[in-house]
Amino acid sequence: MTLQEIAKLVDGNILGKAEITITGVTNLDNATASDISFAVEPHISQGETCNAGAVIIPDNVEQYGKPAIRVANPRAAFTKLLELFTPPLKIKREVHSTVVIGENVTIGNNVAIMPYVVIADDAIVGDNVILYPHTYVGQNATIAEDSVIYPNVTIREYCRVGKRVIIHSGTVIGSDGFGFITEQGKHSKVPQVGNVVLEDDVEIGANVGIDRATTGSTIIKQGTKVDNLVHLAHNVVIGENGLICSQTGIAGSTKVGNNVTFAGQCGSVGHINIGDNCVFVARSAPIGNVPAGSYYGGFPARPHKEWLRNEAAANKAVELVKKVRDLEKRLAQLENKN
Amino acid sequence: MTLQEIAKLVDGNILGKAEITITGVTNLDNATASDISFAVEPHISQGETCNAGAVIIPDNVEQYGKPAIRVANPRAAFTKLLELFTPPLKIKREVHSTVVIGENVTIGNNVAIMPYVVIADDAIVGDNVILYPHTYVGQNATIAEDSVIYPNVTIREYCRVGKRVIIHSGTVIGSDGFGFITEQGKHSKVPQVGNVVLEDDVEIGANVGIDRATTGSTIIKQGTKVDNLVHLAHNVVIGENGLICSQTGIAGSTKVGNNVTFAGQCGSVGHINIGDNCVFVARSAPIGNVPAGSYYGGFPARPHKEWLRNEAAANKAVELVKKVRDLEKRLAQLENKN
Amino acid sequence: MTLQEIAKLVDGNILGKAEITITGVTNLDNATASDISFAVEPHISQGETCNAGAVIIPDNVEQYGKPAIRVANPRAAFTKLLELFTPPLKIKREVHSTVVIGENVTIGNNVAIMPYVVIADDAIVGDNVILYPHTYVGQNATIAEDSVIYPNVTIREYCRVGKRVIIHSGTVIGSDGFGFITEQGKHSKVPQVGNVVLEDDVEIGANVGIDRATTGSTIIKQGTKVDNLVHLAHNVVIGENGLICSQTGIAGSTKVGNNVTFAGQCGSVGHINIGDNCVFVARSAPIGNVPAGSYYGGFPARPHKEWLRNEAAANKAVELVKKVRDLEKRLAQLENKN
Repeated sequence: MTLQEIAKLVDGNILGKAEITITGVTNLDNATASDISFAVEPHISQGETCNAGAVIIPDNVEQYGKPAIRVANPRAAFTKLLELFTPPLKIKREVHSTVVIGENVTIGNNVAIMPYVVIADDAIVGDNVILYPHTYVGQNATIAEDSVIYPNVTIREYCRVGKRVIIHSGTVIGSDGFGFITEQGKHSKVPQVGNVVLEDDVEIGANVGIDRATTGSTIIKQGTKVDNLVHLAHNVVIGENGLICSQTGIAGSTKVGNNVTFAGQCGSVGHINIGDNCVFVARSAPIGNVPAGSYYGGFPARPHKEWLRNEAAANKAVELVKKVRDLEKRLAQLENKN
Repeated sequence: MTLQEIAKLVDGNILGKAEITITGVTNLDNATASDISFAVEPHISQGETCNAGAVIIPDNVEQYGKPAIRVANPRAAFTKLLELFTPPLKIKREVHSTVVIGENVTIGNNVAIMPYVVIADDAIVGDNVILYPHTYVGQNATIAEDSVIYPNVTIREYCRVGKRVIIHSGTVIGSDGFGFITEQGKHSKVPQVGNVVLEDDVEIGANVGIDRATTGSTIIKQGTKVDNLVHLAHNVVIGENGLICSQTGIAGSTKVGNNVTFAGQCGSVGHINIGDNCVFVARSAPIGNVPAGSYYGGFPARPHKEWLRNEAAANKAVELVKKVRDLEKRLAQLENKN
Repeated sequence: MTLQEIAKLVDGNILGKAEITITGVTNLDNATASDISFAVEPHISQGETCNAGAVIIPDNVEQYGKPAIRVANPRAAFTKLLELFTPPLKIKREVHSTVVIGENVTIGNNVAIMPYVVIADDAIVGDNVILYPHTYVGQNATIAEDSVIYPNVTIREYCRVGKRVIIHSGTVIGSDGFGFITEQGKHSKVPQVGNVVLEDDVEIGANVGIDRATTGSTIIKQGTKVDNLVHLAHNVVIGENGLICSQTGIAGSTKVGNNVTFAGQCGSVGHINIGDNCVFVARSAPIGNVPAGSYYGGFPARPHKEWLRNEAAANKAVELVKKVRDLEKRLAQLENKN
């Protein structure tokens, strides 16, 4: 494809030679003369000196040291090209002969159900669903249209997976919540008879654990994306369009609003309410209700500025100890004089 | 079932109408007029205004705004009803035709071994055991009576699983301990030839990793419950009736006493001893031996009160810095005067 | 085997009776009179009083309370004996009849491919490779000679596994990186079309997640060992001979040098460079570039001594608050006098 043709596809305008030929799409570090890459600040000048044949850049760049396409959103344009240039995997639309299907199971059209998938009684698999090998779909579970479940995923009984959901390998949907009654030091299991509901357009990373509710549902609302190794406990509700980054853990019954971000390795106590549009920076963990629109850091999580200011002051503790010791001496001298 | 009948079952007495009919058991938020729910403080008044037909409450409540059953332990009564009202899953007591069984394997009576389970040579599976699909049982591993192993679990060679043990999906029992000899910057593997022993009535959550001992055994003693995504390293010993909450990690050779609780996201260094009846609050991590009966917080973990007091003081760091600066100025003025 | 024979094998010299017979190798706690164990400081005197028949000790020990073998490196000698005394597992060198193999797959000699493994189109499996049950090898993935993949591992399309690599159960190689474009509060997936490269002699623990690169490769260089439940994000590069301990998470595009150790529960922000020979103590997390040879602690991670000093001072916060209050009073009195 010529740079001219690519520029049309991404609705951009060209700076430099339009006739060069592009055969691949990759990042600045790996790009060769036949690749196109993209650069946004602070990497725009690195784009000029890299080996790429051309670079997609923001439309406010006036001059550039190599052929470029200027667009409003370079990352979005790059994403479009990635989809275009990447050869799709070969997916056979069939139910493989080794798939074990229970009684009264409903399977939609145009599905790809790969070797050794097991689908238990009364489950429903919608149209166009792709189930990779070794996936388990429990009794009465449902997976709606266009969802993709990668290998070695477990979806336990009665759980509901929405449309266009992606679940990565090793993830467990609907394991029992961690609920016990303790009498005389011994723990008896509280039956966990609820389920998990993943709404439409949810994506769940690898080796995540989402526990079924004790009663009712643990719910991940539409458009929310969950990263690897996250723990979501029983009866948690995560609102729409959230981002829950890797290794975060949310304890039981906590309700999280819409458009909330937890950065990596965050936590939360159970039984609290977190409002819409909150952001928790890496490793923070709220221990009480959080109002909508909060930008929080630290453990216990508090307003980010306050946390940073306090951390900065606390990091002067060595100096502070010395100063106080010095003040004590000088004050004692003065007191003696007086 | 009428409220009267339910009251008998849970050994409670009725406040209000005894003849109403109950068809389901669920939490306060999800309950409808035909459901029974339960409420303890601080949710007792919420129970009065919820949609449930009846509520199980503590026996010291004198008056209530809707039909209720008063019992000594509402949670325990509710658990009993959950078991009663929940339709059990259909489990076929059979060894599915696709199960691959090695040489010299012993399999008990009344088992349910589901599709694509693999049981290696010399393994033993006890009576009434349920193995869900895609479970792997390694050479010489044993699983005692009445245990339930959910899909996609790996139990490696020589590991021993006790009676009535529950292991949730994705969990790995007996992966190699993280042991290496480093010479001239290169790491050589130390063979990990011990095993893991899960004693009776242990429950292990989803996507947990419990490493086999270098030699000897990594041991989880009877009645201990382990939550999702926990890491227990080689030669760790966890005492009886412990609670190890989600995302906690215990490093190698640490010995934990009986009835110890680690809340979420705790850690522990290796090679220490933690006494009986200790509690570690969320995110705490001991770095040395801990005496029995300790209630600890923080990193390094220390007595909880001491930790809280210090955190409170440290959170005044900004103010403290200002005060010290002010003191310095005023003292300098005084010194000049004198 | 007599102690004499064992001494020859490990190139050591004997202290005490050389004719005793040894039939097992284990740790000090579990050893009986027919076992040999090993002891280094601070456990050398414990070795004298344990039940072992003999103990391997450092060659600078002059006298010992029981038969012993003195060697330069007791741990290495012990490792040698572990390999010798441990009966190997029975591994059938065959492709099991239930293995599903796609089109155009290349499989080497002397492999052991166990029940229900699925190998997708165009994959390559080298000589002597062992694939345990329920492993999935994706399209165009390659696994080089002598590697061992434990049960329930997922290796996604185009990923490359080097020679003598070990991957423990439940681990996912090549899940999609966590990359989205957010427009008007909604997250669209950025295709993750790169792969993961595990170089020779890498070992990966249980239930680890290593994401494929957006473009290019996520790389773990030769000899690096990764513990359980670690998260390595897209486009991360870990240098040679690293040790990444349990539950550590490294965010996207961070480049880590050679011989770097992350102790347990560490973190790192994305897009930074960490030099060679760095050590991060447990729970530390760098938030900016780190020069080679650094020994860091804390969050944000900083030089370990500085961190410890500051922690020690910060832990006097309660006392400091009191002292400042006292100073304020006394100074006010003096000011009044003057």
